[in-house]
Amino acid sequence: MSELIKKLEWRYATKDFDTTKKVSDADLEEIIEAFRLTPSSFGLEPWKLVIVENPEIREKLQVNSWNQSQITKASHLLVFTRIKNLDNDYIDKFLLNNSKITWATKEQLSVYEGMMKWYFSSLDENGKILWASEQVFLALWNVMNLLAQKEIDSCAIWGFDSAKYDEILELDKHWIASVVVLPIWYRSSEDKYSSKPKVRFSKEEIVLKI
Amino acid sequence: MSELIKKLEWRYATKDFDTTKKVSDADLEEIIEAFRLTPSSFGLEPWKLVIVENPEIREKLQVNSWNQSQITKASHLLVFTRIKNLDNDYIDKFLLNNSKITWATKEQLSVYEGMMKWYFSSLDENGKILWASEQVFLALWNVMNLLAQKEIDSCAIWGFDSAKYDEILELDKHWIASVVVLPIWYRSSEDKYSSKPKVRFSKEEIVLKI
Repeated sequence: MSELIKKLEWRYATKDFDTTKKVSDADLEEIIEAFRLTPSSFGLEPWKLVIVENPEIREKLQVNSWNQSQITKASHLLVFTRIKNLDNDYIDKFLLNNSKITWATKEQLSVYEGMMKWYFSSLDENGKILWASEQVFLALWNVMNLLAQKEIDSCAIWGFDSAKYDEILELDKHWIASVVVLPIWYRSSEDKYSSKPKVRFSKEEIVLKI
Repeated sequence: MSELIKKLEWRYATKDFDTTKKVSDADLEEIIEAFRLTPSSFGLEPWKLVIVENPEIREKLQVNSWNQSQITKASHLLVFTRIKNLDNDYIDKFLLNNSKITWATKEQLSVYEGMMKWYFSSLDENGKILWASEQVFLALWNVMNLLAQKEIDSCAIWGFDSAKYDEILELDKHWIASVVVLPIWYRSSEDKYSSKPKVRFSKEEIVLKI
């Protein structure tokens, strides 16, 4: 079995924290790099990562997360956000970055440009939210995999008030909206969940071969 | 830099296939295991993985995927699907599996049960689709990470007719619907894209620290 599978076995939703240990700046840099290198549909990278350390702000966020204590107790709080302005301007900005890196001309990128502009003009607002959220979840899991490799704990949180988060973190200013929240920390050696067996369906229940 | 980051650098959306190489059964077993071990919100595992080898069926699928050749040329085609019946019956079935593994009684699981039943009764059909799709994307990326570690190529495809896929693969019979498609293969040594630089925004453009 590969290292990744072993680390997936190691990982679980720990509930107890070792609050004396902070995730290092070097590890944060790697987290950012894993986030940044995540592939996305059309390569459009419709995301930003918000890293929250400020304790006062985290207290306000906790109140808007069913009061879950990991929001304030964790070493860092990562808020995964999606780009809200998936429009022609965003695509133009993206293509500009592309041509800076690949030296492709505007002409060489025109088919790619047309395909993207056509696709997004065909989606309504809900469709755009769904599409961007799907991409953000790739980035989430990429980061979670890296964390497991480094034996840093994390547990994704869906139970939070996204509109309140956006307001408290002033995300509107950056044209982004919160999608999912990931506190990261080191587990306490006393976590009582550590001895529990992992609950999963059997292979036979979740795989179809055609 | 960790192994995962190195493999993310290795990975890109290859366009050329070595059609003489098939992904082995042992690797397929690990792919299934990575899929199976993916964590999900509430631990609900709202997914099934459909592995398509049958060439006639893959020809029909290609026609419904903007005729992208990797659908038929890849070693295997993985179709990631979501559970459609996110209702009380599904939650009961899930909890039965949970209690078999953890030996928890129905009473011990009652708060967990109540929370899930309340949550899903509060979502409309679109909300359920969004929630389940988000989980499926965690599984997708988990599998893509494993593939990169094993130097097996893959490229997720959004451009397909989900309704047609469901019909061709008879997914309704299993109460599931297709979400995203992942052909897997070995790259050709002649792929002209291999020397292109990776296009990504810079760290500064996608990270906010608060």
